[in-house]
Amino acid sequence: MSRYVYDFDEPAEGGRDLLGGKGIGLAEMTQLGIPVPAGFTITTDACRAYMTSGGQLPDGLEEEIEEHLARLEETTGKRFGDPNDPLLLSVRSGAAVSMPGMMDTILNVGLNDDAVASGERFVQDSYRRLIQMYGETVDHIDAQRFSEALDEDDLEQTIETFKGIYEDETGRPFPQDAKEQLGRAVRAVFESWNTPRAKAYRRHNRIADDLGTAVNVVQMVFGNKGDQSGTGVAFTRDPSTGEQGLYGEFLADAQGEDVVAGIRTPEHVSEMQQRLPQAFDELVETMRRLEEHYKDLQDIEFTVEEGKLYLLQTRSAKRTAAAALKAAVDMVDESLISREEAVARIDPGQLDQLLHPRIDPDTNYEVVAKGLNASPGAASGGIVFDADTAEDRGRNGDAVILVRWETTPDDIHGMIAAQGILTAHGGMTSHAAVVARGMGKPCVAGCEALSVDAQAKTASIDGTKLAEGDVITIDGGTGEVIVGEVALIPPDINEDFETVLGWADDLRRLKVRANADTPEDAAKAREFGAQGIGLCRTEHMFMAEDRLPVVREMIMASDEDERRAALDKLLPHQQSDFEGIFEAMAGLPVTIRLLDPPLHEFLPPLEEARDERMRTRIRALQEANPMLGTRGCRLGLQFPEIYEMQVRAIIRAAAAVQQRTGDAPLVEIMHPLVGFQEELRRLRALTIDTATDEGDVEYLVGTMIELPRACIRADEIAEEADFFSFGTNDLTQTALGFSRDDAEGKFLTFYLQDGVLERNPFETLDQSGVGDLMRIAVERGRGVKPDLKLGICGEHGGEPASVAFCHTLGLDYVSCSPYRVPLARLAAAQAALAEQGVEAVSVGG
Amino acid sequence: MSRYVYDFDEPAEGGRDLLGGKGIGLAEMTQLGIPVPAGFTITTDACRAYMTSGGQLPDGLEEEIEEHLARLEETTGKRFGDPNDPLLLSVRSGAAVSMPGMMDTILNVGLNDDAVASGERFVQDSYRRLIQMYGETVDHIDAQRFSEALDEDDLEQTIETFKGIYEDETGRPFPQDAKEQLGRAVRAVFESWNTPRAKAYRRHNRIADDLGTAVNVVQMVFGNKGDQSGTGVAFTRDPSTGEQGLYGEFLADAQGEDVVAGIRTPEHVSEMQQRLPQAFDELVETMRRLEEHYKDLQDIEFTVEEGKLYLLQTRSAKRTAAAALKAAVDMVDESLISREEAVARIDPGQLDQLLHPRIDPDTNYEVVAKGLNASPGAASGGIVFDADTAEDRGRNGDAVILVRWETTPDDIHGMIAAQGILTAHGGMTSHAAVVARGMGKPCVAGCEALSVDAQAKTASIDGTKLAEGDVITIDGGTGEVIVGEVALIPPDINEDFETVLGWADDLRRLKVRANADTPEDAAKAREFGAQGIGLCRTEHMFMAEDRLPVVREMIMASDEDERRAALDKLLPHQQSDFEGIFEAMAGLPVTIRLLDPPLHEFLPPLEEARDERMRTRIRALQEANPMLGTRGCRLGLQFPEIYEMQVRAIIRAAAAVQQRTGDAPLVEIMHPLVGFQEELRRLRALTIDTATDEGDVEYLVGTMIELPRACIRADEIAEEADFFSFGTNDLTQTALGFSRDDAEGKFLTFYLQDGVLERNPFETLDQSGVGDLMRIAVERGRGVKPDLKLGICGEHGGEPASVAFCHTLGLDYVSCSPYRVPLARLAAAQAALAEQGVEAVSVGG
Repeated sequence: MSRYVYDFDEPAEGGRDLLGGKGIGLAEMTQLGIPVPAGFTITTDACRAYMTSGGQLPDGLEEEIEEHLARLEETTGKRFGDPNDPLLLSVRSGAAVSMPGMMDTILNVGLNDDAVASGERFVQDSYRRLIQMYGETVDHIDAQRFSEALDEDDLEQTIETFKGIYEDETGRPFPQDAKEQLGRAVRAVFESWNTPRAKAYRRHNRIADDLGTAVNVVQMVFGNKGDQSGTGVAFTRDPSTGEQGLYGEFLADAQGEDVVAGIRTPEHVSEMQQRLPQAFDELVETMRRLEEHYKDLQDIEFTVEEGKLYLLQTRSAKRTAAAALKAAVDMVDESLISREEAVARIDPGQLDQLLHPRIDPDTNYEVVAKGLNASPGAASGGIVFDADTAEDRGRNGDAVILVRWETTPDDIHGMIAAQGILTAHGGMTSHAAVVARGMGKPCVAGCEALSVDAQAKTASIDGTKLAEGDVITIDGGTGEVIVGEVALIPPDINEDFETVLGWADDLRRLKVRANADTPEDAAKAREFGAQGIGLCRTEHMFMAEDRLPVVREMIMASDEDERRAALDKLLPHQQSDFEGIFEAMAGLPVTIRLLDPPLHEFLPPLEEARDERMRTRIRALQEANPMLGTRGCRLGLQFPEIYEMQVRAIIRAAAAVQQRTGDAPLVEIMHPLVGFQEELRRLRALTIDTATDEGDVEYLVGTMIELPRACIRADEIAEEADFFSFGTNDLTQTALGFSRDDAEGKFLTFYLQDGVLERNPFETLDQSGVGDLMRIAVERGRGVKPDLKLGICGEHGGEPASVAFCHTLGLDYVSCSPYRVPLARLAAAQAALAEQGVEAVSVGG
Repeated sequence: MSRYVYDFDEPAEGGRDLLGGKGIGLAEMTQLGIPVPAGFTITTDACRAYMTSGGQLPDGLEEEIEEHLARLEETTGKRFGDPNDPLLLSVRSGAAVSMPGMMDTILNVGLNDDAVASGERFVQDSYRRLIQMYGETVDHIDAQRFSEALDEDDLEQTIETFKGIYEDETGRPFPQDAKEQLGRAVRAVFESWNTPRAKAYRRHNRIADDLGTAVNVVQMVFGNKGDQSGTGVAFTRDPSTGEQGLYGEFLADAQGEDVVAGIRTPEHVSEMQQRLPQAFDELVETMRRLEEHYKDLQDIEFTVEEGKLYLLQTRSAKRTAAAALKAAVDMVDESLISREEAVARIDPGQLDQLLHPRIDPDTNYEVVAKGLNASPGAASGGIVFDADTAEDRGRNGDAVILVRWETTPDDIHGMIAAQGILTAHGGMTSHAAVVARGMGKPCVAGCEALSVDAQAKTASIDGTKLAEGDVITIDGGTGEVIVGEVALIPPDINEDFETVLGWADDLRRLKVRANADTPEDAAKAREFGAQGIGLCRTEHMFMAEDRLPVVREMIMASDEDERRAALDKLLPHQQSDFEGIFEAMAGLPVTIRLLDPPLHEFLPPLEEARDERMRTRIRALQEANPMLGTRGCRLGLQFPEIYEMQVRAIIRAAAAVQQRTGDAPLVEIMHPLVGFQEELRRLRALTIDTATDEGDVEYLVGTMIELPRACIRADEIAEEADFFSFGTNDLTQTALGFSRDDAEGKFLTFYLQDGVLERNPFETLDQSGVGDLMRIAVERGRGVKPDLKLGICGEHGGEPASVAFCHTLGLDYVSCSPYRVPLARLAAAQAALAEQGVEAVSVGG
């Protein structure tokens, strides 16, 4: 027969899965000799049996509970149901995975009229709490009926009223039998696993529905028994900074609920030393032992009942990124944990906190609108509606936010001058979003509540009128828009950060590169530890203000000669761009993607075209689905002179830098949007012919893998490629048939809200779909060419779960935006550690 | 040592691959005892050896040629190089795969000054031809130099002039040594394998470059030796009609070249009977034997030299579809071939000829422009520029062609009234193209040379001005546009057609269904032998003139209640549409696809919207890439009431038809654009809930597989599906990243012209890319659910090579437009035969 109940002092093989998080904590503390109230745990097995049987307690469970209750009476010296000072119990839920506040707890089980009759005010108060919680939880009575009837000044009367409510609602008097109370409380906790809110929480957090919860039956201890009693929460180190030393709050003569309710202001936990020196010393010693045992920063709850300390809970503390890093470095110094454990313990997603200014979490502010979190970081500044004004004011040292319907290449100088960018239109891949991310500048894009009248220099957000100069704050990490200034916390890259990332570098196999299009970005990326550039997009060079007219000349050319003439003018610009990037990345590989976007992106909107000839050209280039149109290598094959110019510029730049600095860049020339071997065969030939013509520089020729067909026929394509770089942005768009511009804010947002999808596939790689195509590509590509170099340059390259997936696939590197490089370094190390059995422990903040 | 030369009377194991088409024909005829000039074949092996060695004749070849030449001298009783009546030879190319006119032939090899000195005019003429052909082919002298200098009245002088040209161009006199002539002629034929035009032809026809050509060295026979000589071509049956009996042309006292040059008009071959009775009888008997041997309609070339008949070539004759069918049926009746062979011999692509009116191939006409061949068939009629005029004139019995910039749902009544549709804009999936194909009506779409001024009621094609009523002719099978009327041939479905397709039905495993959206299409499809409907698109029902206002009401609804009210009005229309289709397909399966296109397709263009509210809605629904936007099941999940209404209409219609006729349709409800299991899980539940609510009708629930992710995760999706239908149009678009609207006429046209791609993947399935995704889907889907019903409903379902691929994949059925059903039936039978080793022999017409 299965066993369903374990005392806290009995070892159980099932661990956390069987006993739940709270249960295993209580058991471990008990077994370490740490003062914990006595009690036992009913396992998750019992809950699962209860659920699958449709609400029957499994055979033998009731008898087991009886036995453990008897032991508990023995241990505590009190009797359950005794009319005189009875044993009181709390019945607490506790699943294996934390689901804070989602399930139920009932306190003071075992009290009845007889026990209270003799009792003090404190016992009366406990009884009315029992009736209230029991009524709500076991019998689903509306909480408001009790809260409206509560009269703290006349507890005797309140008890009578509550019992009346109970009988009124259930048709039965409040149960006086302690064991009946316990039995129904246990069932109620089991059932709380399946409340709608618990189910919704699990769906959102991808927790399996069939795990069930354990139930902890624990002796009640009371912090509200006078001035030798109290309750508190404490951290073994400061969860904001990671500083060593006791940190927490204490409230004398109070229960845990009172701390939560905020009726009285708690003291710093150190104040306890005066009032309860012995309990305090024991607390400090206990916390030391807990940290030593768990080897992590602990967050504990405790109660002192008449001078005696009880620990009620211990768990790894949520902490800020700075605290996580400091604690990890200190614990390695203290030989408490290894470097591997330190690295495994930092949540990579948290590092962003340290790289960008952010809104002070202690500030209160009102969010007037939300847009897309297009580029992380927060910024405050006066509104400007055009790039020229942004530049003028910026030159005067004013902080400005550039507010536009949508940005265009003509706005670049204004974006450079602004602290942040806010647009009403456009998605995560809009001009504003892409350029801002490249600049590491905060951007909220596609804020639909915003309307902009750039000519009148006014805007309106959800009814609030705004004029030029009005101050707003945007948070590009959350998409929030706030009217007025809000306190910001500056970026904070300290020594701990460098130390932990240094350890991560020693542990990881995946290399980390950056996506960078300018020398500045390249330098920033290198500063963050990038080992090269995985994606240098050349179209942004075409978009620069001084080149766009020449690019338009090239597009408007009526024949190849005219086109070549325009390209000749562009060549020195491209060359100097590349020289800057090669110098910044000296000695490291730089992957340059040849021109990718459709040509119409370089022309003005139809209504702004100056002459009929341009209008005709714009119309001719218009596409129903530009994402699937004449772009990438299709452009390069139709107008080979464009790619020829780019290759020429790359090779000349490489030769010049080599000559000037002696440090040759490792040039990788990448052709976009290849789906057929023949495309790459021709472009490889063009690349080699042109490069050979230009001089003696080493380079590789490869391709983006960003179409499903390219994955499927990776074997054929590999024959023409030295390397593959997975362009998972476009691969996600084509494999899923999701246009990113049309999905985000529209059907994809609906899918995420409605639970059709759990994750945004543009943020977290769709491993079973897109990822399986990648797996096929890796197998087929390496099957033909075992030393094929493989990387990823989609935005997933900077997302921890996707980085781990890339590690598993056996890629050589990930490439992400400069500001994601530290995160990717850490995630890559954690992926390598996971392979060795050291699982990342994400605590978060 | 390899053997490189075979006499015509020597059996060779390598067959056609080794001897080439011409060589194997001559050898087989020789071995059958049919009169053929003597000669030998130098194998393709020798050519390959010559090419790989960089132009060296392989060891032993020269000796072998010597030996066989000696035998030839013995057989013919003449000596090669003899100054007196020498043996003359033709040196002819002949590859394994027919490459008509692509490679070279040199006649009269072996003549020189000495032999001519004694000679008649006929010999002189032969000599000047030798110098000319030899000069052009062996020494690459410009043909014009000879043709300009030719003087038929003074052959002696011409010979001198030609020799002068030869020496002038090569610096050497014309070679007098017969063996030198032969040796260099053989090399020249080898080398003609690699001329640019031959290479281009092979690339276009997907013929491998390393096959090489054989060289046939054949005794010259002369049809120009007086009135007992002559030359001709003949067919064993009429290649236009298939009628039995001799058919062909004869020219007395002439060489084959003269027939080609068209200087004299040939007579009907039967005239030969008077002039050359013995040779004629022998010809008739020979042709009977050839047909008996080859069991196919033969196309032969022959020459009579002084009363003696020589066959020069035999091959399967190109023929019209009608002839192919008649000949096949007759040959089965004559017990010459089996039904399987008959079926294998019809080119499915040719059947289209019989199903639509077409331009009489014997007519001369001038094509003024070409557009996309959007829907096959030809039509003539007066131009009309709007649907109402089309309807008015159509009612008067006038034949009209509707000419539009692009059609919209508002034009449907005009399209119904018109004989054909011509548009200036839009691709193969434009409204005009899709609707016309459904109607089986000729359509030329996206004719860029056409400009239309609908208000002025004028158009212009490439400079030609056209007004309303001007007659034009369009050929939707070729995309040709002609000004004026052209003679048309009506459709011709005869008994032979039915007979052969009946045999095909007995042989095939794949079922054939039709894509049909109306009862009329369904009836037409059934008439053509469709075994059900594989795709009934419901959006066309939404587009009908009387429903569009209600559909717009539905889209403009401000909440679900308003939307439901509009849908309630649509429901009876949908139900009656479905009833008509179910009656037409009684007893057969009907797959109905729920609403697929984005909602903005039902709204007018922005500039035509009447009020601000509609403009706002249109703007909100606008998408950057509608192909990848809110459509298909994404729409159904966001507005479940739409699909609910459709399911309700389907089930009610099925119940009504069942009650009325007693013949229950087999309803298959299909959800479009599914990529994730969860999408189909929800929609399946919605379908079942709604259907259960409506009554007791059997149905299946399935999905289109038209996204790469759906193929990859077919295992998960299969758990929620009773059937899959591959939507290869969209699957091709997403897998290749090709927007069909943006590819055709743009980069895809360039790709096809420039040879980046050999086939248009929207016409012929990209088997190695899209097809491999389908293979993965079949494996994974059937891995989970072995009895999963599988079909294809993309346009590839009516393309022979793609049908064969679907057979190989193990699909249950293909579905195509009604007019492609016969073709698919035949192609499916040929696929089944190929599996049994009976290869389809495509001769074409």
